Amino acid sequence: MTYPFLNKLRVIESSAFIAAPLAGLTLAQFGADVIRVDMIGGGIDYARMPRMPQPDGKGRSLYWTALNKGKRSVAIDLRRPEGRELIQALATAPGPDAGVLLTNIGTPWLAHEVLATRRADVISCTIQGNGDGSTAVDYTVNCATGYPAITGGGSRERPVNHVLPAWDIACAYQAAFAVVAAVDHRRRTGAGAELKLALSDMAFTMLSHLGVLAEAELLQQERPSIGNHLYGAFGRDFGTADGGRIMVAAISAAQWKALVACCGIGEAIAALQQRMGLDFGDEAQRFEGRDAIAQLVEPWFAARSQSDAQAALERHKVCWGSYSTVRELLANDPRVSAANPVFEHLATPGIGAHLSAGTAVRVPAMLREATAPAALLGTHTDQVLSEVLGLDGGAIGRLHDAGVVAGPERDPSAA
Amino acid sequence: MTYPFLNKLRVIESSAFIAAPLAGLTLAQFGADVIRVDMIGGGIDYARMPRMPQPDGKGRSLYWTALNKGKRSVAIDLRRPEGRELIQALATAPGPDAGVLLTNIGTPWLAHEVLATRRADVISCTIQGNGDGSTAVDYTVNCATGYPAITGGGSRERPVNHVLPAWDIACAYQAAFAVVAAVDHRRRTGAGAELKLALSDMAFTMLSHLGVLAEAELLQQERPSIGNHLYGAFGRDFGTADGGRIMVAAISAAQWKALVACCGIGEAIAALQQRMGLDFGDEAQRFEGRDAIAQLVEPWFAARSQSDAQAALERHKVCWGSYSTVRELLANDPRVSAANPVFEHLATPGIGAHLSAGTAVRVPAMLREATAPAALLGTHTDQVLSEVLGLDGGAIGRLHDAGVVAGPERDPSAA
Repeated sequence: MTYPFLNKLRVIESSAFIAAPLAGLTLAQFGADVIRVDMIGGGIDYARMPRMPQPDGKGRSLYWTALNKGKRSVAIDLRRPEGRELIQALATAPGPDAGVLLTNIGTPWLAHEVLATRRADVISCTIQGNGDGSTAVDYTVNCATGYPAITGGGSRERPVNHVLPAWDIACAYQAAFAVVAAVDHRRRTGAGAELKLALSDMAFTMLSHLGVLAEAELLQQERPSIGNHLYGAFGRDFGTADGGRIMVAAISAAQWKALVACCGIGEAIAALQQRMGLDFGDEAQRFEGRDAIAQLVEPWFAARSQSDAQAALERHKVCWGSYSTVRELLANDPRVSAANPVFEHLATPGIGAHLSAGTAVRVPAMLREATAPAALLGTHTDQVLSEVLGLDGGAIGRLHDAGVVAGPERDPSAA
Repeated sequence: MTYPFLNKLRVIESSAFIAAPLAGLTLAQFGADVIRVDMIGGGIDYARMPRMPQPDGKGRSLYWTALNKGKRSVAIDLRRPEGRELIQALATAPGPDAGVLLTNIGTPWLAHEVLATRRADVISCTIQGNGDGSTAVDYTVNCATGYPAITGGGSRERPVNHVLPAWDIACAYQAAFAVVAAVDHRRRTGAGAELKLALSDMAFTMLSHLGVLAEAELLQQERPSIGNHLYGAFGRDFGTADGGRIMVAAISAAQWKALVACCGIGEAIAALQQRMGLDFGDEAQRFEGRDAIAQLVEPWFAARSQSDAQAALERHKVCWGSYSTVRELLANDPRVSAANPVFEHLATPGIGAHLSAGTAVRVPAMLREATAPAALLGTHTDQVLSEVLGLDGGAIGRLHDAGVVAGPERDPSAA
């Protein structure tokens, strides 16, 4: 669902994959009118897995439709000068709540200086791989961050990639933030802005913001590879008698006390502290004693069913979470259901009804509007050309006849 | 470094750990005047590892100082009514570029309705664990997302946690975005906003945005656990003759062609396609054939040094990245150096000079201002009380005498 914060700010999105589309989705969820412009027939990300099985295993992409809900769709031949001209015109159309381009397609015809000749105060946000314009994707950036050497018991020689496209996600929200800040700035000063955001800069600056870079530089030290232990305090996963798996975190002093009380290991912990010469009231010393602490905690979990353990953890206000697969999460966790106001039911053309999310932000006093599902490609071509560029039926018809634009694709699931 | 987008928007931050401080940092990097208010002596996150070795292994935290650069620091006794009153007054002081609270400390005296009695158009952004106000941290949320069961060859029974606090990071940028959107909205409509953002909502809505939730619901399918392979196309890490490790991604058709050409495996790939009845021009079929493809690629890397492999990959425009530890990254990669304009040298009190990052966003036409290092706790107490609340020297002195506020802590590294 969406909130009307952004007064239908018109954002033209020419994008692919995750970072730019997720930035557009974020803007749409706060009430921007995001118009995604795609190549006729779909861009490079249009068919990405997973896809609906019908027809022929090549139905609509659940990936693409998830990232492009809440937007309008315009289909244009991006290879032809007339098509590019239309996109430039859309991105630079006048109005205080317009003149914003969001893209990750670094191409000369969408360069800021080109757009600025048409609208001096245009705001463009270009997501790149590297700051020099060279290609990089989440996977080829993450490998350089050092994280794979310390994930999942990995090492420099046997790195473990994480699966979540975390840098794409960070880029998306950072980009959406930058766009709105630039719009606010333009409203006050009249100045446009060229915003560039490289995936590798996103990752490497984060290493600075989390203190990891200073640690390497000043202490000449790498984070240890410690499996599922958390760094800097105490926390790890434990198995229950019935094959369940539970993560506990004892970061604050209160969380630590709760864990010790819940597991009834106060005396054993006191003895351990004495033996090791450590004070587990201090988070850093809990971290130092993590393996020995874990050995004292393990039997408690191993002796209980998952549900008994969870009930006790909850009673003692331990900070815990249980592991689940996505299907288990959907089946069992009310946080992922329409009972949670950040979720809603959506009927996506070519896909059907399913649970879908709006923005994670809750604004108790503001009415949420329903999210529009991801449109069939080109659904809003004529509407947008008429409304934004003022083209009449004849002009739009000629663009269709010349193959410069296309209307709604056929619903692939329709008979 | 910071850009002056936000016109010194005053944001009062009462926070701990990552999500809220990183949101504040993001705002500060775009020119907000972020005033972090801490308990006298430091909050719960003030001493988090890693720390400078001097004195006594308990110098300033590299974690805290990294997340709190570019902000002003005020030290107040948060337990006393007079201290709480000061924070409420700071958060609700008048002005169009003020009246914003950012917090992850869910406490009645910072509740939106309390602040709104002092300033009707206040904007508050509260980051929570769960939407019902219960506690959760990155680790106890991530375990429920299903990712640990498919990370690093993990399984439902042997989950692998990723190390990057990705949900905290996403929350931070989402929160910063929401704050700026609400400020823009207030400027237009005069209305304040209560913004709430739960870490678990952030994670679970992302499962929707990435199509993972719909996949589980509609296709009743979990993502496979495939180690370092990427999902949905071809990409994996490979070892070089000299013990190097390189990630390659062949997501687009052009990237795939480049990889095949670089490794000189065109004929072998053609034969493999025929044998398997697959067309690797299609990304989904590359994914299906990933293990067999990897077998053909492996010998090419195994026969080359890392530097020879990299040179060839670069020549063929393959999408690749090499694995490195953080120290290797710092030593060898110019993207992580002061040669990259998103980085700068910073001298942090109690820590010394080190490389540090500003915002990852580049704005070519706008002058970046230098980032202020993380202040010693309470450095700006008097300045802020005077400037924002108009307290005179006598009043401020009485607050000090009563122990309600504190001035700058001593630099722990000073002799």
